[in-house]
Amino acid sequence: MQRRATERVKEPAYLRLANLLEQMIASRSLRPGDRVPSVRLFSSQQRVSIPTALQAYSVLETRKLIEARPKSGFFVRARLSELVPTPKAAAVTRRASNFKETDPLAALLSDHTGSKLVPLGAALPSAELLPGVKLARTLASVARKLGAAGTDYDMAPGTAIMRHEIARRSLEWGGALKPDELIVTIGATEALSLALRATCKPGDTVIVEAPTYFGLARMIHDLGLKALAVPVDSTQGIDLNVLEKQLHQQRVSACVLMPNFQNPVGFVMPDEQKKRLVAMLAKRDIPIIEDDIYGDLQHEGQRPRCLKAFDPDGLVLFCSSYSKTLAPGYRVGYLAAGRWHEKALALKRTGTCSGTLLATLAIAEFLKNGGYDRYLRSLRQSYRQQVARMREAIVESFPPGISLSRPQGGFLLWCELPAKVDSIELFWQARTAGISIAPGPLFSPNGSFRNFIRINCGYPWNAHLERAVGILGHLVRRLDSN
Amino acid sequence: MQRRATERVKEPAYLRLANLLEQMIASRSLRPGDRVPSVRLFSSQQRVSIPTALQAYSVLETRKLIEARPKSGFFVRARLSELVPTPKAAAVTRRASNFKETDPLAALLSDHTGSKLVPLGAALPSAELLPGVKLARTLASVARKLGAAGTDYDMAPGTAIMRHEIARRSLEWGGALKPDELIVTIGATEALSLALRATCKPGDTVIVEAPTYFGLARMIHDLGLKALAVPVDSTQGIDLNVLEKQLHQQRVSACVLMPNFQNPVGFVMPDEQKKRLVAMLAKRDIPIIEDDIYGDLQHEGQRPRCLKAFDPDGLVLFCSSYSKTLAPGYRVGYLAAGRWHEKALALKRTGTCSGTLLATLAIAEFLKNGGYDRYLRSLRQSYRQQVARMREAIVESFPPGISLSRPQGGFLLWCELPAKVDSIELFWQARTAGISIAPGPLFSPNGSFRNFIRINCGYPWNAHLERAVGILGHLVRRLDSN
Repeated sequence: MQRRATERVKEPAYLRLANLLEQMIASRSLRPGDRVPSVRLFSSQQRVSIPTALQAYSVLETRKLIEARPKSGFFVRARLSELVPTPKAAAVTRRASNFKETDPLAALLSDHTGSKLVPLGAALPSAELLPGVKLARTLASVARKLGAAGTDYDMAPGTAIMRHEIARRSLEWGGALKPDELIVTIGATEALSLALRATCKPGDTVIVEAPTYFGLARMIHDLGLKALAVPVDSTQGIDLNVLEKQLHQQRVSACVLMPNFQNPVGFVMPDEQKKRLVAMLAKRDIPIIEDDIYGDLQHEGQRPRCLKAFDPDGLVLFCSSYSKTLAPGYRVGYLAAGRWHEKALALKRTGTCSGTLLATLAIAEFLKNGGYDRYLRSLRQSYRQQVARMREAIVESFPPGISLSRPQGGFLLWCELPAKVDSIELFWQARTAGISIAPGPLFSPNGSFRNFIRINCGYPWNAHLERAVGILGHLVRRLDSN
Repeated sequence: MQRRATERVKEPAYLRLANLLEQMIASRSLRPGDRVPSVRLFSSQQRVSIPTALQAYSVLETRKLIEARPKSGFFVRARLSELVPTPKAAAVTRRASNFKETDPLAALLSDHTGSKLVPLGAALPSAELLPGVKLARTLASVARKLGAAGTDYDMAPGTAIMRHEIARRSLEWGGALKPDELIVTIGATEALSLALRATCKPGDTVIVEAPTYFGLARMIHDLGLKALAVPVDSTQGIDLNVLEKQLHQQRVSACVLMPNFQNPVGFVMPDEQKKRLVAMLAKRDIPIIEDDIYGDLQHEGQRPRCLKAFDPDGLVLFCSSYSKTLAPGYRVGYLAAGRWHEKALALKRTGTCSGTLLATLAIAEFLKNGGYDRYLRSLRQSYRQQVARMREAIVESFPPGISLSRPQGGFLLWCELPAKVDSIELFWQARTAGISIAPGPLFSPNGSFRNFIRINCGYPWNAHLERAVGILGHLVRRLDSN
């Protein structure tokens, strides 16, 4: 309590006030077109100076939440994006894309490194938002402390210090993990791969969400598994009725799900649905591989609970990492594989043996003493604002008739374009124009979502982004009218 | 040339002389029991001071190569280990061990971390020998320089800086790798795993050496592949006649070989054999997965060439790492997958995506500016001395009738115990006594080598090792006489 109080005091008054007004606008206490109090009135209401009140309004103007009208004062802007529907579950098309001829995934992923492209493609947080400098100092200090021993392997399951920190934080999402049931992994990617290998053998069928994370779709293919896609609803998550029907019809070896701030749609599955889901799969003894990589990134309110919190029987293999919250390139993820722990541990031993000891210890130290919780609060706010800003920009630039996800956390947007627009064609055109996007067909095992794109909002708003969204809108319109 | 000359001058005279005499003893110019020149004579022959000559002799005494006899001067010690034969290829036994009931591998690998056991089991260099402190400083400086960008992914194929360093050094083993054909991996372990997955599908058969690296035997099993073991000769490497017969008899999808300083036997395949091998497999278009992890660690002479040096057609998938030479826990390895490059790259993208950027950059910087070559020379000498010392100690403590490998590089010894001794029983007994060893059955896919053990010589000789080998000898004798 002490710490929280201190932090409140530290936040500049104008920012506090701007956030307060933003909340009122978000909660519809102030609606588009409403007049906000005059600067003078607001300063006296809030007991701040007039310059401070003015600064708060100027922040809201930058956020495009209010606008000044000559001689009338400030008004809440019409938030265009509010008027846009969210994509329908039924949008899973049956037309398969020619996945192999034009492989945007390789291009998309190799565009990552040292790229000059505007980064709307891969799900990447901006390094500016992450505590890179502080982590580097922590890393240097850990390395100095360890001396010669800093070169040691960090043999699976990984250093107890890290596993202890992960276990301690599991309380936040309703878990009660023990260090002994955790394996430190090379990001969540390795965790997912180990979980799939521990529960399935080649030829087996795995349920995934439609749309799903494109790395997962490819991974399943690469492991010789078959993916069966079940549509998601943009507020409820995976369609449990369709799922039940599928489970009835065929043998399934595992379900891979992202119930919190799903990539790409951004929904949180309600707790009741989570319970129902776990019970449904427990009845059939089907392992659930849960990807919670965005779980810490709610835009407001409480951190959502995980499927693992509703799993007394060790049926859930819980995968996560610090790649979206702290440092993608430190490669620190983890797996709590429940009943498959021993199997996953053996696979980790022969797959990569060990992670990078020093990077893992630096992350553990940051979690323990680096102010992770305070930092997370500011990160969540940045992501929330960036997503809101991007929604506005897209709605302004793109043709009418699109639909756009309303993510409850994370930093990704899922956008349905007019039916005529081929997102793979758009991908290549945008790339030529210096912009990276993620085309829809990557997000399903059978190339559905031909007219969808996912937009990364991991970067603070700037003129480059503004311009890029303008160009994208132009390209979309052109493809639509061809 | 300039640099080499400078470095020669830097080596202390007494060490140069000690090494000179050691070479004469090794080459049998001086034989056990021979008198070496008196200190006075030697100092005048070599144009050094008497104290310097005396210091050289004292080093040789420490190395147990010569001994002072009262009033008679110094004599070459009888090197007991010279009298011991090397294990025969025919030693592949048919009796399978009960692999699953008692799994020493899990115990062996988890004994790695924070263990109090005497480390004769896993193939681990002592951190004392590695440039941990210098690497930590390099890491800190790289991290400081990158600032916020230090958190970035190092997306596959990995940073060009690292790939450039690896490519540059390939000249040393007769290669001419280009940065574009390299993938940076999580140690050689991931490189091997990617190479296997790129060339084989579940159910396929892979040729391995007998004995082979235990991690490989397990990895093949974990990937759903079948391993077919072909015996090795302790000087020639894999038996090419047996190999040819096997290839004639059945479909094989890949061969995994360690032609240089093989784990566990330590042989180097002669160049003529290497050429014959590559040609034999090229004729059948069978990919060769080459593990060169110990290749930089010759005990004397030139660095051996690699199979990849004899491969014009991209048939060799070359795997290596800096885990045995610089820093196991930095997890920097690499793969040059030849014709399978694109496939391996795609698998890397979905398997682990990226390595730890900062650790990779620190290794690259050390390779470029850290004096890697000079450092390697001293490391090789340490390993050579440690292996020689361990051989002596084993021969002194173990019962007669054992055989012992004569590795030409690296830091591992392969020891055949009396036929009655069950090495898995010995493993558990030794573990109880505080000593880790690697039992023979781990080194083959079918549990052969029941009466073999592998001994790690990665640590400088000390009283703990001395005592541990004494205890091991005692346990072996007891098991032999039961």
